[in-house]
Amino acid sequence: MQRYFIHEPIKDDQSFRIKGEDFHHLSRVMRMKAGDHFYAVFSDRQNQTALAVLDEISSDCARATVVKWIRDEKELPIQVTVASGLPKGDKLELIIQKGTELGASSFLPFMAERSIVKWDEKKMHKKVVRWEKIAKEAAEQSQRTVIPEIYEPVSIEKLCEMADRYTWKLFAYEEAAKEGEHRQFYETLKNVKQKDTLLIAFGPEGGFSQEEASLLSEKGFIPCGLGPRILRTETAPLYALSAISYHFELMR
Amino acid sequence: MQRYFIHEPIKDDQSFRIKGEDFHHLSRVMRMKAGDHFYAVFSDRQNQTALAVLDEISSDCARATVVKWIRDEKELPIQVTVASGLPKGDKLELIIQKGTELGASSFLPFMAERSIVKWDEKKMHKKVVRWEKIAKEAAEQSQRTVIPEIYEPVSIEKLCEMADRYTWKLFAYEEAAKEGEHRQFYETLKNVKQKDTLLIAFGPEGGFSQEEASLLSEKGFIPCGLGPRILRTETAPLYALSAISYHFELMR
Repeated sequence: MQRYFIHEPIKDDQSFRIKGEDFHHLSRVMRMKAGDHFYAVFSDRQNQTALAVLDEISSDCARATVVKWIRDEKELPIQVTVASGLPKGDKLELIIQKGTELGASSFLPFMAERSIVKWDEKKMHKKVVRWEKIAKEAAEQSQRTVIPEIYEPVSIEKLCEMADRYTWKLFAYEEAAKEGEHRQFYETLKNVKQKDTLLIAFGPEGGFSQEEASLLSEKGFIPCGLGPRILRTETAPLYALSAISYHFELMR
Repeated sequence: MQRYFIHEPIKDDQSFRIKGEDFHHLSRVMRMKAGDHFYAVFSDRQNQTALAVLDEISSDCARATVVKWIRDEKELPIQVTVASGLPKGDKLELIIQKGTELGASSFLPFMAERSIVKWDEKKMHKKVVRWEKIAKEAAEQSQRTVIPEIYEPVSIEKLCEMADRYTWKLFAYEEAAKEGEHRQFYETLKNVKQKDTLLIAFGPEGGFSQEEASLLSEKGFIPCGLGPRILRTETAPLYALSAISYHFELMR
């Protein structure tokens, strides 16, 4: 059954409207009619999804009523932010699409020393809008109850500043992995508690420079290895998110 | 430093030749000369990599000598075969590229009931050659010591037959996940021993049909859920491989 993320307020816990793109999708693409059912997800109701019925369709919006609330635990028990050093081409799109399926709660791109792509202020807004669209579609497809937030790209200094509000800060460091470091990631996850926030930073192609690694360590980020094989910049976040899901959702 | 997988025999544990595409890459692309060093990986020497020096370049081959053998544990301690129901477009390429980085030892595509792509015998060989090339490049890039094997696509009946030689057989089943199944994958990994072989089957877009799920269960495959979110057909194998690496390489 179709799922929509509803941004309109809900009245008396039961009636709401659908406007904009979702209205277009519902009326034109799905050709739904009064009486048809769908799932509605509200941003302020994590872990709950509404089975809803369509009451009325007008020219620019639809009205619907909640039939029943369903308990729907689709979210990781911890909040994970993926901070990616801006990679080449459309790799960040892959990270956002797959990372959303795998449960990330936000994505924070940053300009790393070895980022080839130079960030263009003018193109920024357009890119972020596209990334938000990818996250929304992946959230719907994977049946999540939250759409991950996409931040505008920041400098590594700003990243360090923003990281202060997280319970845990990690960075994937190839040099650590080469020296056989393999315990930090697991040791950290063992200490993470439900509802903790975790930020994990990944370098772009070529990884973090030594200066960046020193800066991150200084700011309290723990360097960790993600196994003995060298993972591409877009594969490492998917590894980390899968491992986090395995640890908290399958091993429990 | 450049890495090559050497298919020529090695003499007296120290001298070998490089021919074909790798020779072309070494002499034309990298413009290496006598005296230059590189890493050489031999298919019969798992967990060992040779630091080698180039002795001589002729018109169609190069001769090189091993300077020293380096212990190089890059392979997962268990052998994992990813069996994918043939997906649409070039998704299998993504599965093979990322799956190789994540340590899979072979890929076995099969024709599933819901596979949209119909398998064309004539195009088969060309596709397999392409997949092999992707696996080789990803193995080099991730610094593995083994290139994963790619099987030609088979029927699901043949898959069941081939699965008999594996220590463990699993299949990712969305219906199991929906019913809250989340222990089987972890319970299985807890019982897997070093050098065991594990086959894990994934459905195409739309998943396994009920008949296929019944057949797989009958043949001894264990149905398992991979968490509460619905993963795309190309994401599920990456999740499973990451979790396997986390379990055996980081949690140890």
